[in-house]
Amino acid sequence: MKARVTVMLKDGVLDPQGEAVRHALGALGFGGVEGVRQGKLIELDLAEGTTEDEVRAMCDQLLANTVIESYRIEM
Amino acid sequence: MKARVTVMLKDGVLDPQGEAVRHALGALGFGGVEGVRQGKLIELDLAEGTTEDEVRAMCDQLLANTVIESYRIEM
Repeated sequence: MKARVTVMLKDGVLDPQGEAVRHALGALGFGGVEGVRQGKLIELDLAEGTTEDEVRAMCDQLLANTVIESYRIEM
Repeated sequence: MKARVTVMLKDGVLDPQGEAVRHALGALGFGGVEGVRQGKLIELDLAEGTTEDEVRAMCDQLLANTVIESYRIEM
């Protein structure tokens, strides 16, 4: 089975990587880009029977820094 | 308007970052993790009227390295 975890910086946390992408897009001539946020997408290939609670534990312990990042799990 | 771009390494391209995550999850006691692939998620805040073709051009020129990465656009 597959699980897909998306990890994004929380609102209000500065995202210098996204800001660099926004600036670079402007420099390439893409005018209409008002903001960019960059996050991580982690695709997990899991043994059958793995629960969402286990995936949540993985996020809390390793995949996300919950002080500054939020995550969403799709299974 | 918002667009969401996911960029993943193509199948067959080694993903050492994902492999490191898989290994670390195993070391933390999460046994059922058979594979991990890590990619990027880019959320774009765009001016109204930006077309999917423009977002595709952003991906081809900057957001993805299309030699080794594939991307998907959701608008």
